[in-house]
Formats: sequence, structure tokens, C-alpha cells
Amino acid sequence: MERQHFQQELGTLKERLLAMGGLAEDRVRTAMQGLVDRDTDLLVQVLGGDMAVNELHIEIDDLCLKLLALHSPMAADLRAVMAAIKINSDLERVGDLAVNIGEAARRYISHPPVKRLLDIPRMASTAQRMLRDALDSYVRGDMLLAQRVLDEDDVLDALKTQVFRELLTFMLQDQATIEPALDLILISRHLERIGDHATNVAEDVIFMVSGRDVRHHAGEHQS
Amino acid sequence: MERQHFQQELGTLKERLLAMGGLAEDRVRTAMQGLVDRDTDLLVQVLGGDMAVNELHIEIDDLCLKLLALHSPMAADLRAVMAAIKINSDLERVGDLAVNIGEAARRYISHPPVKRLLDIPRMASTAQRMLRDALDSYVRGDMLLAQRVLDEDDVLDALKTQVFRELLTFMLQDQATIEPALDLILISRHLERIGDHATNVAEDVIFMVSGRDVRHHAGEHQS
Repeated sequence: MERQHFQQELGTLKERLLAMGGLAEDRVRTAMQGLVDRDTDLLVQVLGGDMAVNELHIEIDDLCLKLLALHSPMAADLRAVMAAIKINSDLERVGDLAVNIGEAARRYISHPPVKRLLDIPRMASTAQRMLRDALDSYVRGDMLLAQRVLDEDDVLDALKTQVFRELLTFMLQDQATIEPALDLILISRHLERIGDHATNVAEDVIFMVSGRDVRHHAGEHQS
Repeated sequence: MERQHFQQELGTLKERLLAMGGLAEDRVRTAMQGLVDRDTDLLVQVLGGDMAVNELHIEIDDLCLKLLALHSPMAADLRAVMAAIKINSDLERVGDLAVNIGEAARRYISHPPVKRLLDIPRMASTAQRMLRDALDSYVRGDMLLAQRVLDEDDVLDALKTQVFRELLTFMLQDQATIEPALDLILISRHLERIGDHATNVAEDVIFMVSGRDVRHHAGEHQS
């Protein structure tokens, strides 16, 4: 009975984390759409902050505390709650990064476009897919999916380098592009960080499922 | 006896967190010194990664798991362990940011200097002091000190804006400064993020001590 009750509450916790991930992802999507469509209203919406993400952040921390205090879970159950505490922080920061993207995008669209945006939206969809897959891997305890998230980080890294080189070329050729290109570079860095958060989640999942620590074995994350 | 044993192990946990904070801070200091002195050897040292920080990261997570599994702590004790789990993640990322600073610094010193560096070292010492104060506030349960860390974030933010404006002026005036100035802007962003991590730690401390959640009340963190 006791363990059944714990599993039920862990189910609620997972459901809330998925909801929070969905909201954080929505905010990133809105910021990116505001950038691509040059739509100030969308960006203002993102910059207004998101009470819903913040409330979920606090609610999930409370749920974790209650699960630990009431059930004193052990082994894999304990690792699942510990992973949730960390994932909750990662998701909250993804929400903050959406704001950062929105700020840079608002400055960007106050200038004429530097170029047609292709690689940056590609970075965004890669980062968002990584985040979604990482959360699914947590909910399902799916280590293979978590591993796939870790592999995708290389794709994001390659895109970031490509974006940087291309924008630098524009900046060197035409002074008028310096300010807006700088904002695109900052946006690509924010997207890279979203990928880093997805990677953190995936590493937590592998630790949760296997008890094996995969952090700090494949070299450092570097940007 | 039982509670005394828990307090002893919590003491060990705090001591390890302080050690990890010290190591992460050392790495940031080395990266900054490599930048200011244009010393490639120092930067290569930072880029080599830091086994010591990574090993502490895993050790501290294990300590937290053991404390939860063996003692099932309640109330303030439980919040102290939960805070440690989060602080551990924050410190690990500060170590990663030192690598990011080292990478940008190595590119920077391959060009002639853009300017004498004043505000960026000031940002670094502010961020490092915030981190140190935040960790001390955790160990001592000192809410006033934690609050001071939150206040200092405004100083860092103002410096970041000033650095950005000044470097943009250089870039617009002299094409040759574009690449190196861009790296200085990235470094200032990495330092800002170190301040964000210190802020996260301070917020966790206030929650730990008071059970009161100070996150998401004074507006979003934005960069």
C-alpha cells in the first residue's frame, strides 16, 4: 500500500515535470517565432515572464520535499526524486533562457535583417527536441533515448560553430550588420545552453536508471 | 545519537561543498589571470578540465543520497540536503564556465588587445565574491549574507551592460577589433552566469533557513 502510494505520487511528479517542460518549450518556441516573423507582440509576451512556469517550479520542489519526508524512498525511487529536483532546476532555467532569447530578438528586429534565418531555427528545433526526448526518457526510464539526447549535443555544437563563423563574416564585411549579428550570436548561445540543460537531464536519467554515473567521462562540455 | 550522526555527516557535506566552491573559483581565477596576463599556459591549464571538481561533484551527490537514505531527515535538515543537491549542480557549472572563459580568452589573446581590461576583471571579482558569500551563507545558515548576494547581482548586471556598450563602440569604429571584442562580450556573459549561479545558491539558502520561497517574486533574472 505504502509503496503503491509512493508510485502514485511519483506519477504525479512526473506529470508535473512534463507539464513544466511543455510550458518552457512553448516559451522558447514563441520567442523563436517572434524572431523569425519579426513579431514584437510575441516577444513582449515572452518578456512578460511566465507565472505558470514559476509556480510549477515551486510546486515541483514542494512535491519532491513531501515525497522524501513522507516516504523516505530508497535506491531507484530515491534516485528518481533526486533526478526530479535537478530536472526542475534545469527546466526553470530553460524558461529564463526563453526570456534571454526574447530580449536579443527584440533588439535584432529593430535593425534590418542580416540574413534569412535558417541555422538558428534549426538549432532551436534541435534543442527543443533534445529537451522533449530527455523528459520522455525520464518519465519512461528509457536509457537508450537518454543516450540519443547526449549524441545530439554534437549536432547542436556543430551548428553553433557554423552560425558563429557565418555571422562573423557578415560583421567583417558590413559594419551595419555588427549590432544585429551580435544578437544572433547571443541567441545561438542561449539555444546551445538549452541543449546543455537537456544533456543534464539525460545524464540524470542514466544515473537514475542504472545507478551509473555517466558525467565527466566523455570530456567536458565546452562552448 | 542518530541526530548527532546526521549533523556530523551534514558537516562533512558542507565542508565538501566549500572545497568544491574553492576549486571552481580557483579555475575562474586562473582563466581570468590567463586573460589579463595573456598567458597561454594558464589558459591551457584551465582547458585541460578539472578532475578534482568532477570527482567532488560525484562524491557530493553520493553523500546527499546516503544522507537521505540512511537518516530520512525532516524539515530544515531535509531542506539542507535538498539545497546541497542544487548547490552541487551550480558549482559544477561554474567549473564548466571557467572552461568557456578559457576558450574565449585563448582566442582573444591571439589578437592585439582591444583595450586595457578593467570592467571585466571587476565583473570577475564581483562574481567570485558573490559565489564565496553564497557558499558561506549556506554553511552558516546566514540569511542576511544570502540577501546581500542577491543585491550584488545588480552590480554585475550594470557592469555587463557597460562592457557591452563600450565594446560595441570599439567594434563599430575599428573593424580589426570585431573578433577580439566579440570574445570579451562572451566572457562577460560567462561571468554574468557565474553570478546567476551564486544567486541560485543564495535563494536556496533563504529557502533552507526560512522555509520561505524567495524565487520568482522580484521579477525574472534577465540578461
